[in-house]
Formats: sequence, structure tokens, C-alpha cells
Amino acid sequence: VRLLIVGGSDAGIMAGLEARAVNPSVEVTLVVADHYPNFSICGIPYWISGDVADWRDLAHRSRSDLERAGLELRLGERAVELDPGEREVTVVDPSGRAEVLRYDTLVLATGAHAVRPPIAGLEQLGPTDGVHLLHTMDDAFALLGDLERRAPSSALIVGAGYVGLEMADAFRRRGLDVTVVDALPQVLRTLDADLSALVAAELDVHGVVLRTASPAKAIEAEGAAIRLSGPGVDLRADLVLVAAGVRPNVELAHRAGAALGAAGALAVDRCMTTALPGVLAAGDCVQTHHRLLSEPTYLPLGTTAHKQGQVAGANAVGVRRRFAGSLGTQVVAVFDLVAARSGLNGAEAEKAGFDVATVTIETDDHKAYYPGARTITLRLIAERRSGRLLGAQMVGAASTSVAKRIDVAAAAIAAGLTVSDVADLDLSYTPPLGSPFDPLQVAAGAWSAGAC
Amino acid sequence: VRLLIVGGSDAGIMAGLEARAVNPSVEVTLVVADHYPNFSICGIPYWISGDVADWRDLAHRSRSDLERAGLELRLGERAVELDPGEREVTVVDPSGRAEVLRYDTLVLATGAHAVRPPIAGLEQLGPTDGVHLLHTMDDAFALLGDLERRAPSSALIVGAGYVGLEMADAFRRRGLDVTVVDALPQVLRTLDADLSALVAAELDVHGVVLRTASPAKAIEAEGAAIRLSGPGVDLRADLVLVAAGVRPNVELAHRAGAALGAAGALAVDRCMTTALPGVLAAGDCVQTHHRLLSEPTYLPLGTTAHKQGQVAGANAVGVRRRFAGSLGTQVVAVFDLVAARSGLNGAEAEKAGFDVATVTIETDDHKAYYPGARTITLRLIAERRSGRLLGAQMVGAASTSVAKRIDVAAAAIAAGLTVSDVADLDLSYTPPLGSPFDPLQVAAGAWSAGAC
Repeated sequence: VRLLIVGGSDAGIMAGLEARAVNPSVEVTLVVADHYPNFSICGIPYWISGDVADWRDLAHRSRSDLERAGLELRLGERAVELDPGEREVTVVDPSGRAEVLRYDTLVLATGAHAVRPPIAGLEQLGPTDGVHLLHTMDDAFALLGDLERRAPSSALIVGAGYVGLEMADAFRRRGLDVTVVDALPQVLRTLDADLSALVAAELDVHGVVLRTASPAKAIEAEGAAIRLSGPGVDLRADLVLVAAGVRPNVELAHRAGAALGAAGALAVDRCMTTALPGVLAAGDCVQTHHRLLSEPTYLPLGTTAHKQGQVAGANAVGVRRRFAGSLGTQVVAVFDLVAARSGLNGAEAEKAGFDVATVTIETDDHKAYYPGARTITLRLIAERRSGRLLGAQMVGAASTSVAKRIDVAAAAIAAGLTVSDVADLDLSYTPPLGSPFDPLQVAAGAWSAGAC
Repeated sequence: VRLLIVGGSDAGIMAGLEARAVNPSVEVTLVVADHYPNFSICGIPYWISGDVADWRDLAHRSRSDLERAGLELRLGERAVELDPGEREVTVVDPSGRAEVLRYDTLVLATGAHAVRPPIAGLEQLGPTDGVHLLHTMDDAFALLGDLERRAPSSALIVGAGYVGLEMADAFRRRGLDVTVVDALPQVLRTLDADLSALVAAELDVHGVVLRTASPAKAIEAEGAAIRLSGPGVDLRADLVLVAAGVRPNVELAHRAGAALGAAGALAVDRCMTTALPGVLAAGDCVQTHHRLLSEPTYLPLGTTAHKQGQVAGANAVGVRRRFAGSLGTQVVAVFDLVAARSGLNGAEAEKAGFDVATVTIETDDHKAYYPGARTITLRLIAERRSGRLLGAQMVGAASTSVAKRIDVAAAAIAAGLTVSDVADLDLSYTPPLGSPFDPLQVAAGAWSAGAC
């Protein structure tokens, strides 16, 4: 059995590893557009910041690990055509030489492209002008090269999402003046606005200038600087990073007749199969089943890509497995603050038609008498009638472990627990690390006493 | 309605607060044997260590908070007789004056006594001899007074359970030489032996001498020192702390005819009612419903006492509520190490008749490329056939958040999730704080691949 995988990031690699684990006789070939298979895209901001000294460490596994696991890697090759009828993929190597690869089963793990928002002049500017995207290792090399070569003293970041804020942190660590611009009125749109305001305050404390509700409309080189302008916006900086999210990379499959689903991502079922015979797909190029939503959504996340890749790999070798579903669980560390969410936020719950009641508390992460207690702001969203937990959001200092506390909520949501069930959980307690009623349970009690 | 509560610690206070919350017209009187209502017993080691500067801060709520909430406090009064037929409790105040209190409903929250193990000579020695127990604020005052007055340079701790190890840590912080003696061959019997060995190693690193499998049989004053001896044990120190666990304080109820259950604790149902009419009981004096066990057990824990107290308080005023059950979730911080557990350990699962399979992994708490990654040792115990998760144990440095990671397992166990369900959870990830597959999921994968 020949399994061909297009894409060498989280989903593609996991598909290959899982297929080999399930059926060690399967021949697995990965077509990888760059030379960095299995690199942690999520880790790039920490290499730029200097926290990670060597970019090679960003690889989840080394090339030889992957080859030892039985994956044949075709690095630097781009898949340019898919013929699902003939079960063939045409690839082009760096020298331009084309080759046709035959497969029995194909897994598309083509990932996503960084979005270039509609800013006049953006298409004409690139890394050599000091204007960067940040989605691939090559993007990262270009950015770090620019930082080292020109030693810019100021940066503009377009986009106040996860990557934009991680990069604001990274640039500040490198000593740059940083301004973050976003068309939306808040940072981190995945959080409710009032909780995202806590993150905005943390940015302010650390000297990041925030310009929300400020749509950038035009960009141009102005001497050695870059000028970004729009209604009420006229900013200059030595360097611009566009971190405006990603869009699914579906061109190869779409030209071959694959259907598109949520947000233009590839339509797949929960076994990660497309409608094309013998073609599966996983990761940032596909739509995602959400445990709480009746319709698929688009949630390009590393955790999801890993799991979907495993499911695709198992199904590719004939072992039926279903992707259990995402909850959009996310966490981001911004300076000393951590913001985490799981399930639906207020707007998402409303859009999905749930009648919800919500409660928000502020409480200490551990008993106040023990030194170092810090505030956690915690929101629970639950179905008004049934009390079924639908979402949780938490913001707190790094020491408050909100990154793991959110996982308790994620487990509770996945298991269909009610707020009252959460109040009844037997959670751990010792004064330096907690309270007899965990913050999640304090919130659950407050919800039952009178959420609105 | 007159609600009388005997006991002013976690269970008693929560019963009173919940009763008032449910029915603001109920008259609530608490008989509290000492003058420290609602003090955090769990916090005492941190006052002794010096982490908590003022003992008054150990109160979960102040006396005036409690009175404002409508609780009438009778401090320093001991309940000496219960007549359930007449619905009367006789109390004696510090001057020896007796008074009979009538009630409509009674909640017994008499807590536990520190165990005095059968060591010859122990009954004859006390705080003035440098021999201490540590279960009440008065015990704590006696111990700290002794430490300050005599400035002992060495301490022997009898008992390598949670309190014994927390106190070993506290004494080391005060500069004492510390030896911990236990008759069992391991510390922290609530963990499997090989995981508890990691805690033993941490004690060793911090200069605590550990003498396990060393039953103490006799104790005597020898000049200014205390001598502790037994088979293979002959130790001397300036101070001895006996931390040999607790036994339920049931005398009052037992004399009035209440039935005893697990470990001699008061027999109660899940509404916290005893067989005596109008008498409920909660906290360290009662047996505990365990979610995974068919028979009640004895698990004197602050978290459980709080929840049982609430249930008793609600039922006391006619609102039927059931205690959801404990999982024996516990966590302890010992120097830089944290050990946590939930559900059943290996011996408990076997004793309960489960056919289990177990897996143990060592993994980093977050991506190794980000600085500061530390090892977590993580064990999952699940029913062999069904895969239902029955227990989890974790040991790791304080920075690894095992205290909160265990709560994810606690939620999963309570919800009846299988190991495979755990692998499918959508848990949070960012490189400084986690991995695309959380350690719990790495363990779940390893369990499915081949637990034994």
C-alpha cells in the first residue's frame, strides 16, 4: 500500500506516523514544500524573542527520527497537480523538474497561508523592504535576518490575534518600540471583549502601543521607514509584521474537484475523508468538527491538526477512526499574563442559537494567606435551562496555572457536564497551590446562585 | 427553625453558611470547642514554616464575617452530651458551666483527633517536653512557642504522610535537622510506592533523613533530648512531632446511639443524614461516599469536608441534596516537588476488585525547546476491558502544574471517561506552557498502545 502525504507539518507528519504505527508495511511518502518537516510553527515567536537559541530545536522530531519511523521525505518539492481519477500527484523539485507520484491513498495536509489583508501597497512590499509575514520557517529566517541586519528600533504589527501579541512580546524583549494595529475594537477576538481588555492592559504595562478599531488601508515605503495609514491611523516604523491570521491552502485539491466547506477549507467528514476517492485531508487546510456546533467550523490549531492527522493516518490504512471534535481550546502567554478559553464565547454561543447564562468572577489562584496569590478572572457560559457548560474563559498571571485550569473546563465541556457537576468535582487542594473550592467551582457556585 | 451545629471548622461553617443561604430565616448556632472558628488547618504548616507571617490570616473568614452571615458562635464551648430524643445538646463553657441547647436539626461536624500511635511513653509526654501533635490551632501555638522558646536544632517527625512531609519542609526552612520516621516502607502511602520514591528522593536532596520501615515503639525524655526507639531505630532529637494521621471524633454521637461506619466514622447516607432523627453529620467525623467504590470509605480532607458541610446545611433546612462523592484527590508540595493523585491507586484498585491495566510515562511539562521544561512522571490506571479511567498519579516540579493537571484527570474520572476519551480531549497548548499532545494524552496513548 502506497500512502502519499502532501505536507510536512503537524497533520502530515502525524498521519504518516500513525499509518506506520497501525500498519508497519505501508509505504509512506511525504511531499514537503520546504526543508523543515515537523517544525513547530507555534514556536517561531520564541525563537524570534531569543528564548529559543537555536532554530533547529523547533523541530518536534529530527529528519532522521522521521526516516527511522519509516517516512520517506521529499523535501523542497511542491505538489502542483492532483489527478484523483488516476491517483497521481505531480510534484516539482527545486530545479523545476516535474515528477508524477502514484498513490493508493492520499492525505492532503497542505496547511494554511498567512492572510495578506487588503491593504493598498502590501503586495508590492516584502522582507527586503522590512515588511514581513510569519507563517513558515523561511518567513522566520527573513524576519530574524532583517532584525539582525538592520537593527530596527520600531515595529508595527498588523493584527492583534495570538501571533500578533506573541510577537509584540517577542519584539519588546528585543528592545523594539512596538505598536499593534487592528481593525477590530479589541485584541484576541476569541475572548469576550471585557476579558480581552485585561490582555490589552498587560500590553500597555509593557510599553506596547495598542491601536484597536484602526483599520490599516495603505502601506508604503517612506525612506528607510514604512508608513501605515487608514482612517484615523498614520503610523511609521522601521519594520512591519502582518499577523492577520491564516486561510486554508486548498488550491491543489480544489482544482482537482474537492468540495470546500467552512471558511473555504476542504470539506471532510469526521474520518477526515474528502469526497474525492482515496483522498483524505487533515489540519489547517480542512474544516473542523466542533463538539458543540452542528455545522463544521474553521479552527486552524496545532492541537487539532495533530489529532486530525492521526485520524487521517489510521483511516488511510483502513482503520476506521473518527475525529472526536474540537472545542476551540486555546491559550496564549503575553508578557506575565495568560489568557485561555475553551468551548464557546458569548458571541459564538449566541450565534449558535444557545440560550445561555453567564457568570464572571475574580478570585485568588490559591489561599490568600499563602504568599504570591494572584487574581484569576474566570467566566463560565452555560445553557440557561440545563446548566450544561458550554464555555470557559480565564485570564491570570502565569503563576495562576490558567493554562491547565482551562483544561479542567475543556474536559467538563467534552463530557457534557453541567455547572452543578463542576461544582461537585473532587479537585485537588493544598494552600500554596489552590483553595478548598477551586476557582472553577467558585464560579460554578456563582452561576447557580444567579448567572445572567 | 433552630439549626445547631457542633464544630466550627470546614464542615460546620459550610453547613451553617449554606443553611442561611438557602433559608435566611433559619437560626444557626455553632458550638466551637476552641476560639478559632473557620481556621484553615491545612495552612498550619505554612505558619510554622514562616511563609505565613500572622496566624490570624489562616482564618478562611473572620469571626465578624461569620456573624454577619448570621451564624451565632459559641466559642470555647464543648458539647458533652447529645439527647436525640429530646433534641438537646448539653454544652460546657470554659468555666465549667453547663447549658442545654435545644434544636430542631443538628449537624455534627466534630472533626477528627490526631492519632496517638501505640508508642510506649507517648501518653506521658507533651508540648512542655518537646513532644507535639499538630491538628488544632492550640497545637500550632504550642509547637511554635516551643520552637521559639527552646530554639531546638533537631526534630524527629513520626509519620511520613502529607502533614509529616509538609512539616519536614517547614522545619528545614527554619534550619532544623530533620528525620522522618515511618513504620511503612514508603512515604505518602496514598501514592504507589515507586512514585512515592520520587518524593523520598526530594526529601533527601533537601537534607531530610528518612527512616521508613522503621516502627517507633518507645519514646522517652533523655535529658533535654527526646529518644525514639524501636526495632532498628534509635534516634534522638530536641523536638518530636507526631503526625500519624487522624481518627474521626465520634464520641458525642456514638454515646447517643449513632451508628459507626468505615474506619469508625459516623455512618451517614449521601444526604449526610445519620440514623438519629434530626441529626446530620459532615466532615472528618463521617464516612465518605467514593465515586468509584461500592462501600463508603474514610477520607478526611478539607475539600470533602467543605462539600459535605454544604450538603448537610442544605438538607438541614429541607432542601434535598446529595454529596456527589469523593475521588480521594490530593496534592502535596514538598520542597520543589509536587505529588498529586486522584481516583484509585494500584493497591486500592486491586482491593476494590477492578481488573486494571496501568501505564507510567515520563515527559516534559512543555515543549523542550522552550527553556525550563521539567519532567512529569505520570501514571494512569484504567479498567482493562472498558478502558474507563480509574486513577491518576503525577509527580513533578512545582513549575509543571501537576496540581492542576490532576484536576483534568479528576474531571475525567468523575465523568466516567475512558482513556481513549482522554486522548480525544481538546486541551490547551502554547509552547511555554504545554505540548500539542498534553502529558495526560501522551499517557493515554501509551495506555492504549500497551498498558500492563
